[in-house]
Amino acid sequence: MSQQTVFAAELSWPDYDARVRDGSVPILIPIGSMEQHGHHMPMNVDVLLPVEFARRVAGMTGALVAPPFTYGYKSHQKSGGGNHLPGTTSLDGATLVAALRDVIKEFARHGVRSICLVNGHFENSWFIIEGIDLALRELRWGGVETMKIVVLSYWDFVDKATIACLYPNGFAGWDLEHGGVLETSLMLALYPQQVALERAIDHAPASFPPYDVYPAKPEWTPVCGTLSSPKEATAEKGEILLQVCVEGIAKALQAEFASAS
Amino acid sequence: MSQQTVFAAELSWPDYDARVRDGSVPILIPIGSMEQHGHHMPMNVDVLLPVEFARRVAGMTGALVAPPFTYGYKSHQKSGGGNHLPGTTSLDGATLVAALRDVIKEFARHGVRSICLVNGHFENSWFIIEGIDLALRELRWGGVETMKIVVLSYWDFVDKATIACLYPNGFAGWDLEHGGVLETSLMLALYPQQVALERAIDHAPASFPPYDVYPAKPEWTPVCGTLSSPKEATAEKGEILLQVCVEGIAKALQAEFASAS
Amino acid sequence: MSQQTVFAAELSWPDYDARVRDGSVPILIPIGSMEQHGHHMPMNVDVLLPVEFARRVAGMTGALVAPPFTYGYKSHQKSGGGNHLPGTTSLDGATLVAALRDVIKEFARHGVRSICLVNGHFENSWFIIEGIDLALRELRWGGVETMKIVVLSYWDFVDKATIACLYPNGFAGWDLEHGGVLETSLMLALYPQQVALERAIDHAPASFPPYDVYPAKPEWTPVCGTLSSPKEATAEKGEILLQVCVEGIAKALQAEFASAS
Amino acid sequence: MSQQTVFAAELSWPDYDARVRDGSVPILIPIGSMEQHGHHMPMNVDVLLPVEFARRVAGMTGALVAPPFTYGYKSHQKSGGGNHLPGTTSLDGATLVAALRDVIKEFARHGVRSICLVNGHFENSWFIIEGIDLALRELRWGGVETMKIVVLSYWDFVDKATIACLYPNGFAGWDLEHGGVLETSLMLALYPQQVALERAIDHAPASFPPYDVYPAKPEWTPVCGTLSSPKEATAEKGEILLQVCVEGIAKALQAEFASAS
Amino acid sequence: MSQQTVFAAELSWPDYDARVRDGSVPILIPIGSMEQHGHHMPMNVDVLLPVEFARRVAGMTGALVAPPFTYGYKSHQKSGGGNHLPGTTSLDGATLVAALRDVIKEFARHGVRSICLVNGHFENSWFIIEGIDLALRELRWGGVETMKIVVLSYWDFVDKATIACLYPNGFAGWDLEHGGVLETSLMLALYPQQVALERAIDHAPASFPPYDVYPAKPEWTPVCGTLSSPKEATAEKGEILLQVCVEGIAKALQAEFASAS
Amino acid sequence: MSQQTVFAAELSWPDYDARVRDGSVPILIPIGSMEQHGHHMPMNVDVLLPVEFARRVAGMTGALVAPPFTYGYKSHQKSGGGNHLPGTTSLDGATLVAALRDVIKEFARHGVRSICLVNGHFENSWFIIEGIDLALRELRWGGVETMKIVVLSYWDFVDKATIACLYPNGFAGWDLEHGGVLETSLMLALYPQQVALERAIDHAPASFPPYDVYPAKPEWTPVCGTLSSPKEATAEKGEILLQVCVEGIAKALQAEFASAS
Repeated sequence: MSQQTVFAAELSWPDYDARVRDGSVPILIPIGSMEQHGHHMPMNVDVLLPVEFARRVAGMTGALVAPPFTYGYKSHQKSGGGNHLPGTTSLDGATLVAALRDVIKEFARHGVRSICLVNGHFENSWFIIEGIDLALRELRWGGVETMKIVVLSYWDFVDKATIACLYPNGFAGWDLEHGGVLETSLMLALYPQQVALERAIDHAPASFPPYDVYPAKPEWTPVCGTLSSPKEATAEKGEILLQVCVEGIAKALQAEFASAS
Repeated sequence: MSQQTVFAAELSWPDYDARVRDGSVPILIPIGSMEQHGHHMPMNVDVLLPVEFARRVAGMTGALVAPPFTYGYKSHQKSGGGNHLPGTTSLDGATLVAALRDVIKEFARHGVRSICLVNGHFENSWFIIEGIDLALRELRWGGVETMKIVVLSYWDFVDKATIACLYPNGFAGWDLEHGGVLETSLMLALYPQQVALERAIDHAPASFPPYDVYPAKPEWTPVCGTLSSPKEATAEKGEILLQVCVEGIAKALQAEFASAS
Repeated sequence: MSQQTVFAAELSWPDYDARVRDGSVPILIPIGSMEQHGHHMPMNVDVLLPVEFARRVAGMTGALVAPPFTYGYKSHQKSGGGNHLPGTTSLDGATLVAALRDVIKEFARHGVRSICLVNGHFENSWFIIEGIDLALRELRWGGVETMKIVVLSYWDFVDKATIACLYPNGFAGWDLEHGGVLETSLMLALYPQQVALERAIDHAPASFPPYDVYPAKPEWTPVCGTLSSPKEATAEKGEILLQVCVEGIAKALQAEFASAS
Repeated sequence: MSQQTVFAAELSWPDYDARVRDGSVPILIPIGSMEQHGHHMPMNVDVLLPVEFARRVAGMTGALVAPPFTYGYKSHQKSGGGNHLPGTTSLDGATLVAALRDVIKEFARHGVRSICLVNGHFENSWFIIEGIDLALRELRWGGVETMKIVVLSYWDFVDKATIACLYPNGFAGWDLEHGGVLETSLMLALYPQQVALERAIDHAPASFPPYDVYPAKPEWTPVCGTLSSPKEATAEKGEILLQVCVEGIAKALQAEFASAS
Repeated sequence: MSQQTVFAAELSWPDYDARVRDGSVPILIPIGSMEQHGHHMPMNVDVLLPVEFARRVAGMTGALVAPPFTYGYKSHQKSGGGNHLPGTTSLDGATLVAALRDVIKEFARHGVRSICLVNGHFENSWFIIEGIDLALRELRWGGVETMKIVVLSYWDFVDKATIACLYPNGFAGWDLEHGGVLETSLMLALYPQQVALERAIDHAPASFPPYDVYPAKPEWTPVCGTLSSPKEATAEKGEILLQVCVEGIAKALQAEFASAS
Repeated sequence: MSQQTVFAAELSWPDYDARVRDGSVPILIPIGSMEQHGHHMPMNVDVLLPVEFARRVAGMTGALVAPPFTYGYKSHQKSGGGNHLPGTTSLDGATLVAALRDVIKEFARHGVRSICLVNGHFENSWFIIEGIDLALRELRWGGVETMKIVVLSYWDFVDKATIACLYPNGFAGWDLEHGGVLETSLMLALYPQQVALERAIDHAPASFPPYDVYPAKPEWTPVCGTLSSPKEATAEKGEILLQVCVEGIAKALQAEFASAS
């Protein structure tokens, strides 16, 4: 049993307790989903990537990584293809909110005062925020006033220069990046054996009207499930993305959690 | 990307869809926790073990394994030491119920009609049952009448003969096996590098009165967090347990899900 | 209107208030169910028994007995025959949790600081625990830090010697005692007119596999609804059980609530 | 064990099942509270009275009486003195709604298609209605379209002639009858040993402004907890009330449930 | 942008903040519904009237008026015709409770310590009370102990003398006033262009038995949807009602909120 | 009482019923908030604007407009300044979800089969989606399979050409448009008397890091509450925005709801 691991649940409780009791060590919680990612990638991409980002950042900042949330909020047609698709396995909003609220409060009970939610699934965003709000409210009721929580989606750390470099033919927006160049490149860099690029379907970026329709209109989503083509993905692009995001996140956490350590 | 994996989320959606659409393939959902397991084991034991049981059984029965539940219900003092202990990170009952209800319904949407919940954390038991009941109720409202769900805790498949063999000096009951010979032997067989048996504390089995008290009485729980000593744990015992439980579970699923395939 | 009654709701409010205001008097809350108990007993066994245990213990310890919970959690196939059976009338888990949480908080408002939940229905167990946990959490938010709650199921006070005496042919476990010798003997001792032992069905103890299946498999439950035969039940055994349990519970409460009085 | 009892939970399941399976027998559910009722009456008045009304009406109409709800919604200052008073022990609205919803659905599962909720606590009224609405909605989702539910508070069956007779000096309204002539007379007729009329406080009817204030203003409620004096209560008046209400309720049920039997 | 408006949401935040920060200015929250009001009136009567009452009272007392609740609790057959009627658009009880709880807590965050809920829809009454109770509970958990909330339905301020004057032929009770003389007269006085008195249906007051039935019995409700005839409604009666109620409410608030200002 | 109004609640129920019963007429539901919008605008901007968009579109398409939601989800620091600001008055996510779910189901009960949610408050977006999902699920349980729901935020209909025209110096993104040129121009065109442009604070667009922090960091939000300067707002720009958005929305609804009419 290693004491060097950054994964909190791989520690024994005395080792964990010694780390977090005084509130100086941040906890990073990866929030993912089980969601279709096209023909060329598995359905756990949104778990694998935030876990890996969290692992790298934890290594750089002295933080610990909590067990990931393996299910997330319902896939949205215009950012994930829609929750009608096979394989996508989602939670009601209230469930995700409650789970996050509970877990944050438990880490607070251990002494943790700095938490970073590392989101890997776009649709989780607002329910994460609500979960944080409810947790902080209840913590205040219980007398805990000093919890600080950072929430981020790793792709928001890709700056314009990197976008210009990675998408020489123009960038369609993060929404359409579902199963596209960003995620595929990262997977190629990190888990190449999990990617079957030869099975990827090349297609024009999905084009949606400026509104949503429910029930989802299956004809709006490309049949393969990705919203833009992953064909231009490469491991090299993945390495660039990794570097940019890891550095950005680490810097953010150092800035925000400076006073805690 | 392997098509041979038994882990559902490691498949692409078309591969997954081809497997489950007609309802013949069961899904096994491991339900764990993040919980202290003494000085000698990490806090993810209750995830690692049911995932591994599910993986082996899936390989024998043609089932698929869903992403595990990485957090579970609150640790009970007389079966897990108590939820006041550092490191233990738990959900409210309603949260676990809702999460399980949601996920079962999603698998039903994909076509799945046989589900087995593989529990690794004693305290989850009743909330799993409620989650199933709510899911089946809502599925019936939605017109799905043929879902069949098996729920089990792997240790219930250890028969009396095996107990007699593994515990020559007497068996204290599954409740007190928290962090004891059962879990430690299984971990030694499967993940020896995650066990530091030399850090284990040898102590007499915890002795509790025939009632519970809340808030928990910390003096009731052995300081180390285990409820019985793991000192007699060995990898060989773990192998025996693995074999007995895997065979038992596989047989149960073959019997119960026979009509589905 | 008697001031001597141990039933809190049979007191006028000034008499009740004088008793509980300073926190020294414990409240015992019987938690039952409406559940089939075979051909030979009525469906309120799980209310009658904990009410009577509470009444006797209250008389010995100076406690008061709150109105019972007349409905409980869903009957489990392997401990109560299953919730598909006619007559069994159950609550969702969340409902029982909320009701118990509310009532505990109200007693706390009156000044009560010692509560004992006297459970008569196995399936209530975990939802009682969750109700307590939520109540204590909210009480802490409201500044009440000193509430102490004992929770027990009366049968857990039957010691091994008594079991050996009452079950000379071997004891099948509390789970299978549904409508069997334990409950029937107690009813014969306390409410003989409510028992029609001549209608009892003699059958071998139910035998279940080490897992559960949902929806329940009606063929697993003996047709009569009991899980073991009540034929060996006698009023004398009931008297022994009464004495052992009442003494055990009274002693437990005296020990746990000593500091309160 | 009597087969003649009207109390459903005093029947064995086969006897109960034989009665309700075809939907012809109505179930009456008494809904009460634990609430202060002045110095002269116990706190279970709102349970005892609807149970007795239900028992009598059941005897006349061939119905069965379910176990009562022993806790109800929060006492309102202008109809029950307020929920700040000692002894009053209440549920959140959502809890009462859920409990009633659950129980109605269970009776429907047994085959029951006619239910009457016999309310004994004014403040329950609207939450009973919501509980019914949610139950009927879920029953419709489950394919049960023929459930019919009557809800009543027994005092609404006291007609103007009876009021004139019982209150020769003028009637202050049902709201102010909390612990007053109505309830006290009924208790004197039914449970005289539970009434200590000599302890009753004589006071002018409480007088409230046409609005409510929260938190409750203790000075608005007479110190004794009743809202009008019970001094004019007699067992004879109780007998008249019993007769008028029982006849009225029986007639109503016969009219409404005629088609069911 | 006027600084003189009494409508809080028509102020800029600095103007609003300057008014409410020190807790001296009460907030009036109109609670309405979207509900059928017969052939001669629109479905927003229960919003228009409490908003106007609140506006007038605010002008007299220095209070501010919050945005109205535009949807309310389900129409009850005996006070609003029933929730089966076309056009009536209602919330579940829990939804109304939660919305009111949330909004009260937000005003408390701004510094407000005096709130008056001005109800225009009878069926909201009890859910408003529950919303207040939950809000005050959570505010106490958060350390706010000084919030005072008045809740009223404007018609409760019509005194007996006014009733005698307005209903020379006898008053059927507020319940039956749905779409009748009271509401119609007020609408004629305030929004004559919204009333088509010539379309009103003249009918005897609805007559209901002393109990309710669910599902609603359509034949109980007059086909037009009103429960008593509005034919005697006049703008003059509306002016009298306005004056009586506005004066009564203003006086009540001045008395209750005196200490706050 | 006009029969020409597009506001559903201004109709009598027979007029409304005649319009919606056969499902051909869409209902537009404006969803707003009470939220600070800087020094120069009132806090009801997010209600006024979607109501007016809905009114205009309804006039063009034969739809009806439901009463607006006057409160919305919590303001997010990077799109609305943050929910810590005075005046902003928000709902929990679950409350907004439940309210929308309830109202959609009620319109479905009336016969409506086409609904458009016209959102005026960015933070509502995901909770609107969840409310729709829950409503559609329950409608399916109740046998309604043909409801179609469009959800839109009006600003998403501003095309790139219009952006280029309105923001000659560059467009900072819709998030930062809180209280900026877009909303202020629309208000100047529609409600000039509600805008005090001279009180607007000119400031550089707010600049946020690529993550959020909770509790909100007040120093991140410009003191005035707007996220970009409204100084370049004009009524002319507002007219352009009105025209572009109204035309876009009307066209979208005509396309999506064509089959319904």
